[in-house]
Amino acid sequence: MKVLGIDPSYTATGFAITQQQGNKQELLHCGTISLPSHYELSSRIGIFYECFNTMVQEYSITKISLETPFLGKNVQTFLKLGYLRGIIHLIAHQHLIQVIEFSPKEVKLAVTGFGSAEKDQVSRMVHMLFPGLIQKKSLDITDAIAISLCGLWKQ
Amino acid sequence: MKVLGIDPSYTATGFAITQQQGNKQELLHCGTISLPSHYELSSRIGIFYECFNTMVQEYSITKISLETPFLGKNVQTFLKLGYLRGIIHLIAHQHLIQVIEFSPKEVKLAVTGFGSAEKDQVSRMVHMLFPGLIQKKSLDITDAIAISLCGLWKQ
Repeated sequence: MKVLGIDPSYTATGFAITQQQGNKQELLHCGTISLPSHYELSSRIGIFYECFNTMVQEYSITKISLETPFLGKNVQTFLKLGYLRGIIHLIAHQHLIQVIEFSPKEVKLAVTGFGSAEKDQVSRMVHMLFPGLIQKKSLDITDAIAISLCGLWKQ
Repeated sequence: MKVLGIDPSYTATGFAITQQQGNKQELLHCGTISLPSHYELSSRIGIFYECFNTMVQEYSITKISLETPFLGKNVQTFLKLGYLRGIIHLIAHQHLIQVIEFSPKEVKLAVTGFGSAEKDQVSRMVHMLFPGLIQKKSLDITDAIAISLCGLWKQ
């Protein structure tokens, strides 16, 4: 059971792969992917597909975990986030992987025990759960780790 | 120059392929694709990808034309429309095709000469432009034909 958590964005998509080993969770890989802003939209989406398609194969991912986005100020930006989520669903279909989705509140509640926690509280808890994380990770990454853990714990 | 116009939707995606032959436009193919509602979202998206990926290859499509959607009553439905649009951009990237987008007003203006035209006015004009259309086509299809024509005329 290897769960890929993804927090999609054009500027910095956070991702994290966790797995259960006995009583504890292991963090196999995490990072961010940035899609070059000077590229055409289709090319950025193509890069996004290729990155995660390769990752799913390399790590033999068995589940993908996502957070439900909420409409911000810009409707067209929100729609374009949907483009990236569509790509994730396609990859899941092509590799016969389940996609599981959590609300931001569920993610915060699962990781910190508090549904209204701030992003930096989530980050602190993630660093406590994985003391092996040497450097402080960006909020994009700690969010993705939290999303991945939700998928793992849901099992 | 073969333009594939797509009006994405989960219940009935309209599509149309037009090309310029001398002074007139030819309609090569048109129809609708329905994604089975009892399938999982990822599978529906996979079917959408496979249909249009095959169509783009079979018809040697050189451009894809889309209409910019506007936010309706349901935000999550709007987001899920973005999933399908993301798949179209991926196909465009994989086949090195340009995606061109028009507002609903631009499409109506181009086809009827009137930016606030109703869908059935667009439909009547489409049937006038293509008298070979024996049966009256659904609005999903006539919209897609109009979107395809916009992409053709933009050249």
